[in-house]
Amino acid sequence: MRSATEYLTFNTRKHREYINISGIREGMVLVSAMHITAAVYVNDAESGLIADIDEWLDGLAPYRDDYRHHRTGETNGDSHLKSLLIHHEVIVPITDGRLDLGPWQQIYYAEFDGQRPKRLVIKAMGE
Amino acid sequence: MRSATEYLTFNTRKHREYINISGIREGMVLVSAMHITAAVYVNDAESGLIADIDEWLDGLAPYRDDYRHHRTGETNGDSHLKSLLIHHEVIVPITDGRLDLGPWQQIYYAEFDGQRPKRLVIKAMGE
Amino acid sequence: MRSATEYLTFNTRKHREYINISGIREGMVLVSAMHITAAVYVNDAESGLIADIDEWLDGLAPYRDDYRHHRTGETNGDSHLKSLLIHHEVIVPITDGRLDLGPWQQIYYAEFDGQRPKRLVIKAMGE
Repeated sequence: MRSATEYLTFNTRKHREYINISGIREGMVLVSAMHITAAVYVNDAESGLIADIDEWLDGLAPYRDDYRHHRTGETNGDSHLKSLLIHHEVIVPITDGRLDLGPWQQIYYAEFDGQRPKRLVIKAMGE
Repeated sequence: MRSATEYLTFNTRKHREYINISGIREGMVLVSAMHITAAVYVNDAESGLIADIDEWLDGLAPYRDDYRHHRTGETNGDSHLKSLLIHHEVIVPITDGRLDLGPWQQIYYAEFDGQRPKRLVIKAMGE
Repeated sequence: MRSATEYLTFNTRKHREYINISGIREGMVLVSAMHITAAVYVNDAESGLIADIDEWLDGLAPYRDDYRHHRTGETNGDSHLKSLLIHHEVIVPITDGRLDLGPWQQIYYAEFDGQRPKRLVIKAMGE
């Protein structure tokens, strides 16, 4: 079995990234945020939809002053809830040396508490 | 390491499928929609619950005329949001040659923008 | 390839657990609830946030008398919806023999229909 691990550091709000899976022809790649106020998802690279997702998430998990979490001094309770809603990781199959995604599937990192350096782990396993 | 990949094509609204994992006794199987308006989840095979899920999703991610995504000519903004909410993939453990699921766990493919052929990738890895 | 499988049985409402991945240095570990009214997620070990998550989930997927699922005699329709929202499994990378989590990432099992014994499968794969 081969495995390959890579870490990406971001300092921006959103990011799309192509993953180096050289040497692995059959397997899976895990793409996982290392933060609890961020998410990773697979969907469309369409700017209107991205704005729709952002607005929709803000409706379902809005900022509120009175989150109990804010008693710790944090102000990012909504960022944690948005992260739970979207999920922090995806697994993508690798077939014949390539990411085995559908024609419109793109991997996105979504940051809900930005303006600080953030990390993502990408781990490919297979042979 | 062994791996086995299979693609299923659907043209129906919902589907439950048994996965051929012959030859793999210990490992994991990834079941992943190849579309951005579909989902894969694990839950109960109970028709009332399936109708409840459908109604609940339609409340949390309703159709709206004014999604920005619709400026592209698409009319399926809500289908993308439903897909994000439920998630497009699951990983199921394989133990002793069988899907290692709890007694009530069933794997579902949920289609939110149907009436066209859709694909699902099933990839088993292990030994 | 090595794999290690462990089952945990709970009878409590919430649980945090350290996983024995001895012998696997590079790979992934799947942590998956074996029930359809429970969830597994990665987020912060902060009691205020946990109470916020619980309240927020109860708002998005509230108890209702009139779920169709309740015609079967069950009363846990909302527990299924909460489980779908949070998801029943996570995959965590193992790098250099350790769970490769960010500094604040903790693995949680969330029970939405408790007071009965419940099971979780933990399956590590790698070498």
